[in-house]
Amino acid sequence: MPPLITLTTDFGTSSPYVAQVKAELYARVPGVEIVDITHAIRPQAISEGAVVLDDTTRRFPAGTLHIAVIDPGVGTERSLLYAEIAGQRYLAPDNGLLTLLVQRSPATCLRKLTDPRYWAAEVSPTFHGRDILAPVAAHLVRGLAPEALGPAVATLQVLAIGRPQALGDGVAGQVIFADSFGNLITNLGRGDLEQLGPPEKLVVSCKSAQVHGIRRTYADGAAGTLLALFDSQGRLELAVVNGRAQQSLAATVGEAVVVKGG
Amino acid sequence: MPPLITLTTDFGTSSPYVAQVKAELYARVPGVEIVDITHAIRPQAISEGAVVLDDTTRRFPAGTLHIAVIDPGVGTERSLLYAEIAGQRYLAPDNGLLTLLVQRSPATCLRKLTDPRYWAAEVSPTFHGRDILAPVAAHLVRGLAPEALGPAVATLQVLAIGRPQALGDGVAGQVIFADSFGNLITNLGRGDLEQLGPPEKLVVSCKSAQVHGIRRTYADGAAGTLLALFDSQGRLELAVVNGRAQQSLAATVGEAVVVKGG
Amino acid sequence: MPPLITLTTDFGTSSPYVAQVKAELYARVPGVEIVDITHAIRPQAISEGAVVLDDTTRRFPAGTLHIAVIDPGVGTERSLLYAEIAGQRYLAPDNGLLTLLVQRSPATCLRKLTDPRYWAAEVSPTFHGRDILAPVAAHLVRGLAPEALGPAVATLQVLAIGRPQALGDGVAGQVIFADSFGNLITNLGRGDLEQLGPPEKLVVSCKSAQVHGIRRTYADGAAGTLLALFDSQGRLELAVVNGRAQQSLAATVGEAVVVKGG
Repeated sequence: MPPLITLTTDFGTSSPYVAQVKAELYARVPGVEIVDITHAIRPQAISEGAVVLDDTTRRFPAGTLHIAVIDPGVGTERSLLYAEIAGQRYLAPDNGLLTLLVQRSPATCLRKLTDPRYWAAEVSPTFHGRDILAPVAAHLVRGLAPEALGPAVATLQVLAIGRPQALGDGVAGQVIFADSFGNLITNLGRGDLEQLGPPEKLVVSCKSAQVHGIRRTYADGAAGTLLALFDSQGRLELAVVNGRAQQSLAATVGEAVVVKGG
Repeated sequence: MPPLITLTTDFGTSSPYVAQVKAELYARVPGVEIVDITHAIRPQAISEGAVVLDDTTRRFPAGTLHIAVIDPGVGTERSLLYAEIAGQRYLAPDNGLLTLLVQRSPATCLRKLTDPRYWAAEVSPTFHGRDILAPVAAHLVRGLAPEALGPAVATLQVLAIGRPQALGDGVAGQVIFADSFGNLITNLGRGDLEQLGPPEKLVVSCKSAQVHGIRRTYADGAAGTLLALFDSQGRLELAVVNGRAQQSLAATVGEAVVVKGG
Repeated sequence: MPPLITLTTDFGTSSPYVAQVKAELYARVPGVEIVDITHAIRPQAISEGAVVLDDTTRRFPAGTLHIAVIDPGVGTERSLLYAEIAGQRYLAPDNGLLTLLVQRSPATCLRKLTDPRYWAAEVSPTFHGRDILAPVAAHLVRGLAPEALGPAVATLQVLAIGRPQALGDGVAGQVIFADSFGNLITNLGRGDLEQLGPPEKLVVSCKSAQVHGIRRTYADGAAGTLLALFDSQGRLELAVVNGRAQQSLAATVGEAVVVKGG
């Protein structure tokens, strides 16, 4: 079974940068299997990357190595990290990309990449994904112990996303992702809403819109209806039947969403 | 040789949903080879998916398993199907996605997916591609007999596309796909036009434009010229030399195209 | 270790044409590993393809076979070529796609594809990537000697890009690529600027903007600042900190860029 490495970046689907990273991996690990998670994270949108990593990487075979490059601080003093979280392995800048993952399960091994012996011979100050993370990934899947990469670190950067706030009579969250169907995904999970009452009685507000009751699937309403439902990860989501909630509400990532009992 | 599974969806190229499906496959079938056909079918455009499946899947090695998820009815009573058509294997909702394939060659094995033993332990009502089709695909490539999946069914949904209509002195079809070059692909094949006369004498009409004669390739005209030609699948296509027919004609999928003898 | 084939095309990320090429390769070479470099070259933008091929293919394992299909002349008398350059192998139309690669290192084997025994049985005049290049690629990775493909040729088409011009007191180049971050990449390399003085003293002009000094990385300035820096390939690049130089300057591929000593 070949080693499995995934890539999550904001390089864009039209970019040659992705292939440069892949070339380094293929050249260093013959037979490696590389999986694109996405390269269409909006440029430098760390919180969007954090959501995607949380939604996808947990499902891969244990031991998969995930490289994440949404890295506005490339070339500055920000660190690059190796982390083990819930049986998966990660290489990423220390800028909050792993926020949702470590909120779910703490990192069991956390190393700062400092030893240049495992990097490319020449490191561009603008492309650490290719010149540091890819060579380090190759060493790891070929068996290098993570301890060799650099010193242990105790903590990593976390973002302010991911934590809903309790109100007197409800809970306040926010949109954390807009998918390609225009559905608006929030940071409010089933568990956050349980104490407010049965789902069919809840009232969800976003901007000037109010939705009464949480439905089961996208077809539970006439075309054009704004629905609230739990997405396939258990997150509260706003959707328009046969339409696009993002456009209908003119809302996007960061917009407040409030849920109250009916 | 590793088992080969293809994916055709409307999830979008920026979506983390594709990687969730892949993760399920990698976790269940170590070493599986996954090929993206496209994830850029316009949202819920079943007929566009039908065209792409017909154009691409027939060319894969015999026995390849093709997963298609353009599924506006997810969570409703629509069925999910397993089908064998011309040596290829398919998993798809029963909504017309296989229309062009079965018009070409009937399904030799057709099963409705009803046995939840082959699905994920928890099935989201909004993501059957990940929670039903991917686990079933894993079972199939590991050797499960299709008969185990559920009962045989006799027929499947077909769409109204794909059937040109004879006129008194010609034939009427429609645009069924607009490609990334802006070329307009129709449902009119070489065979549909044979009785009308030699290709160089035919007159092709779309909206207010008329094209005289069918050319051989895109370079058979001055820049900006609207051409009719047979595409690489033998379908009649409208193209603008060094331009975009879709924009020049302001036409898209569904637009009528009429061909008459000269 | 499976044979490695890469694809670089202008088919678009929403296109079924890519999967048709892949299907031919999988059907002819069980277990082949196919890597997408990009399918988002702007339609028929040969010079953009030349830049991407130069940036990416040199990094792959020696012997990798790279298929490039940006081919506005498909179906005309333009040739299709096999080339070996710096240990990599290429299949491409003879239209300048290999310009930057051969400027760096001459082709050591150059063949015109003329023997139809190695092509598909039927060749569409509009899709030589699928019907000629893919079958030829399959023969090559299975061991066919390139000499069998057709006669040796002495030269290939080269584009006018890639060669900066010396001015009395500086050097003139142009933008050759705009990446997904809106960064403008030029054809001016470190070596082209060395004789003008130390990087921190140089003045870079593009349209009405002037930038004083070449910086090290994207974070070397306040948000919104226009920077000049060397990209990870050593090419001069214009970038806006946390912004998009392409939009700020309203400049794109072909725009003149002049560098003078300070």
